[in-house]
Amino acid sequence: MEKFFSPKSVAVIGASNSSFNLGATITGILNHLKFEGSVYAVNVKGESVNGTPGYKTVLDIEDDVDLAIIIIAAKYVPEIVERCGKKGIKNLIIETAGFGEGGPEGIELQRLVDLAVKKYGMKYVGPNCLGVVHTANNFCGFFGFTPGLYDDILTTPGKISYLIQSGGVGALVMDSLKSDVTKINKLASIGNKADIDEADFLEYFKDDENTEVIGMYLENVEEGRKLLDVAKTTTKPILIFKVGRSKEGATAATSHTAGLANNDIIFDSACKQAGIIRLNAVSELHSLPKIFTEMPLLKGKKIAVVTNSGAFGGIVADILIDNKLEFPEFSKELQAKLRETGDIFNVANPVDIGPNLSKQTLMDIFKVLLTSGEVDGILPVPNVWNEIVIESIIEFVEMCKDYGKPAAIYVPNAVERIISIRKQHNIPLFESPNEAARALVVSLQQYNYQKKKEQK
Amino acid sequence: MEKFFSPKSVAVIGASNSSFNLGATITGILNHLKFEGSVYAVNVKGESVNGTPGYKTVLDIEDDVDLAIIIIAAKYVPEIVERCGKKGIKNLIIETAGFGEGGPEGIELQRLVDLAVKKYGMKYVGPNCLGVVHTANNFCGFFGFTPGLYDDILTTPGKISYLIQSGGVGALVMDSLKSDVTKINKLASIGNKADIDEADFLEYFKDDENTEVIGMYLENVEEGRKLLDVAKTTTKPILIFKVGRSKEGATAATSHTAGLANNDIIFDSACKQAGIIRLNAVSELHSLPKIFTEMPLLKGKKIAVVTNSGAFGGIVADILIDNKLEFPEFSKELQAKLRETGDIFNVANPVDIGPNLSKQTLMDIFKVLLTSGEVDGILPVPNVWNEIVIESIIEFVEMCKDYGKPAAIYVPNAVERIISIRKQHNIPLFESPNEAARALVVSLQQYNYQKKKEQK
Repeated sequence: MEKFFSPKSVAVIGASNSSFNLGATITGILNHLKFEGSVYAVNVKGESVNGTPGYKTVLDIEDDVDLAIIIIAAKYVPEIVERCGKKGIKNLIIETAGFGEGGPEGIELQRLVDLAVKKYGMKYVGPNCLGVVHTANNFCGFFGFTPGLYDDILTTPGKISYLIQSGGVGALVMDSLKSDVTKINKLASIGNKADIDEADFLEYFKDDENTEVIGMYLENVEEGRKLLDVAKTTTKPILIFKVGRSKEGATAATSHTAGLANNDIIFDSACKQAGIIRLNAVSELHSLPKIFTEMPLLKGKKIAVVTNSGAFGGIVADILIDNKLEFPEFSKELQAKLRETGDIFNVANPVDIGPNLSKQTLMDIFKVLLTSGEVDGILPVPNVWNEIVIESIIEFVEMCKDYGKPAAIYVPNAVERIISIRKQHNIPLFESPNEAARALVVSLQQYNYQKKKEQK
Repeated sequence: MEKFFSPKSVAVIGASNSSFNLGATITGILNHLKFEGSVYAVNVKGESVNGTPGYKTVLDIEDDVDLAIIIIAAKYVPEIVERCGKKGIKNLIIETAGFGEGGPEGIELQRLVDLAVKKYGMKYVGPNCLGVVHTANNFCGFFGFTPGLYDDILTTPGKISYLIQSGGVGALVMDSLKSDVTKINKLASIGNKADIDEADFLEYFKDDENTEVIGMYLENVEEGRKLLDVAKTTTKPILIFKVGRSKEGATAATSHTAGLANNDIIFDSACKQAGIIRLNAVSELHSLPKIFTEMPLLKGKKIAVVTNSGAFGGIVADILIDNKLEFPEFSKELQAKLRETGDIFNVANPVDIGPNLSKQTLMDIFKVLLTSGEVDGILPVPNVWNEIVIESIIEFVEMCKDYGKPAAIYVPNAVERIISIRKQHNIPLFESPNEAARALVVSLQQYNYQKKKEQK
């Protein structure tokens, strides 16, 4: 698997100088990112493509090729795979569409590809996919990307690796993480996953020391047992969003990437057994990982709310209860300690600091709560109407790490402003109180699973 | 009520030149917005405040005063109210906090205020509130606002009027609508609503010809019957978010604005009877109104999905089913007509135009669907990777109005980008597929209520 993410030499088969050529966008992005391996463009004319040396066939390339990325019309793919086999290339990414999802003709092409692959002992990702990304390596095999659009995310190594069945969702995740604190380690868009599937990638990610969290978007699961067996061998958080909760959704999804519809209820209960965190919305793929990458795990249900904007105490309390978390009353002792921190409007849960904002009081409140023994985590809702609030949040994030208790922070400002503050100060802000509560829920779910595993 | 929103003369009692003076922020914002009525600053020294003429007491003001905004320490408020009465002022906004929510002392002050108010036949908004806004009049009586921060929203008259019990939520709504297509007509933050309550405002908004949609944020409802009786007399959409679904939330909310906790289940069923749309999240206060201000009502459950990013067909199908909408299969005839529009990847529901994007094909697809008789509304999910997509959306919004069927548009791009496109092109984009589906749900709910009313 390593060679899919860290190839020393890559042939992009189908990269040419004809207009709207998709392969050329791949050599283009590799040049733009200054990928350090060798790159070869393969096309009928053998012409070089934006500086990448050109060859008529892979057989003409003198050096060894670790990885071939194939992006030509589907009907030519079986022959190209055969040639790759002859050249001794063991790893392929077939990005071309029109196989299992493309009617009888496509299914026949798929059969021919599989024959050739078997003959030469090759492995492949795809077909009908966007390919893979490895940020630490400046490697992006995606077609159709405009150079520059995703530079930050493609070259900033992070802690989460994704396995995403759809290119569109892969792009959405990358686009969204541009303005978030969690960054990507590796990402694979696997399309029809006719050979290598989600379980294979999970097997790889679980032992990959640079991957702390694993995110997956799946449209169908054909070998559920295999996926779950692998999942059970790791305690890294695995977050899966799967389409097809409804019959209608399953049908729509399977027409897209050539899968069989699954029984969603069975999948759901299997996830619970294997400690897989099932996500409620596709946006949770990018919004929730920060609770794992930036915060300790939540070890119990008791959540304190701290606000400077009274209304949000009640709003968040409702949301915590909806999410089956607890919103405890504080003991008299704790309330007395909180009162000592300064001029506070309400020392019960929610703590309402009111309009008389002071950083010292805020930090004291957080410290009192984190050390009280009455609180497992905090959902602060500080309206950012003052620089002091941002400074306090930055310090508070570190405090949570020191005390081993997490916070899911929501600032009750317009989403546009939340994103801008998050980007500018690199602090893990959630975009809604629901999202913050969900982050606490999945953190606790992960903690409980790990504890269960340890006790076995 | 008119004089609360369109006063010809306003006294800001408590506006002075001392540092951090809140009243001065009100005269400041009125100056900044070029409010055309007369404004008087009232303070112990009788000094003028950023250009606003100063008086020692309202009794010294020669002209009639339509509205007094009171923002001084709570203990002085009863006396000030008395003076306002002597001066013949009939409308007060008491923004000061520390009454019903402020313990026995506050409750006694509240009693004194009510005595004075009764004596002179006055009406008041508050206490413990931010005041009111009337965009068409460049009138904003909110304290603490930084001039410039909300200029667009404060001076761009729109179609929705809000009644919001919390200043913090009012600010969040305004902040959020800065980047949305729906604009505000009037907004009142009513705090403890010790005199004028939500039902009084609803009575006014329902007959206000510039108000097409009504939004409310409530922490408690003391006179539920009164509210519902008024609601039943209008068919304008009324959207309410109420805190306190849980015991914990209700307790937290009532400590904030001095109310009694309510039985949420009773409130919920009463809303259904009165055609009130109950919102699921505070963000729906600003995200959902655009389905009413920009689109015809949804008249049935059958929703077509149109995408250029295959995965989202399945994702949205699940969400429609979750929301009890329908995702119909298309007839052979309709599929054949769709096939004629161009090179389409999938002509079933979801329609997937695939990567071969053409504006003409997209517009033809929309027209075929809107005129098919098989579809009540559309949830398009066009990935904006091309200017053509934006141009098509702009034209499609007009097409929906022409054909009398709504669309709730979600573009599967990062939220940051969605907001930026929405702002730049003024098109009603939702920020998530869930939000888009919810918009369709509330639109249908409103249609069904109106139909029921007509049949009576």
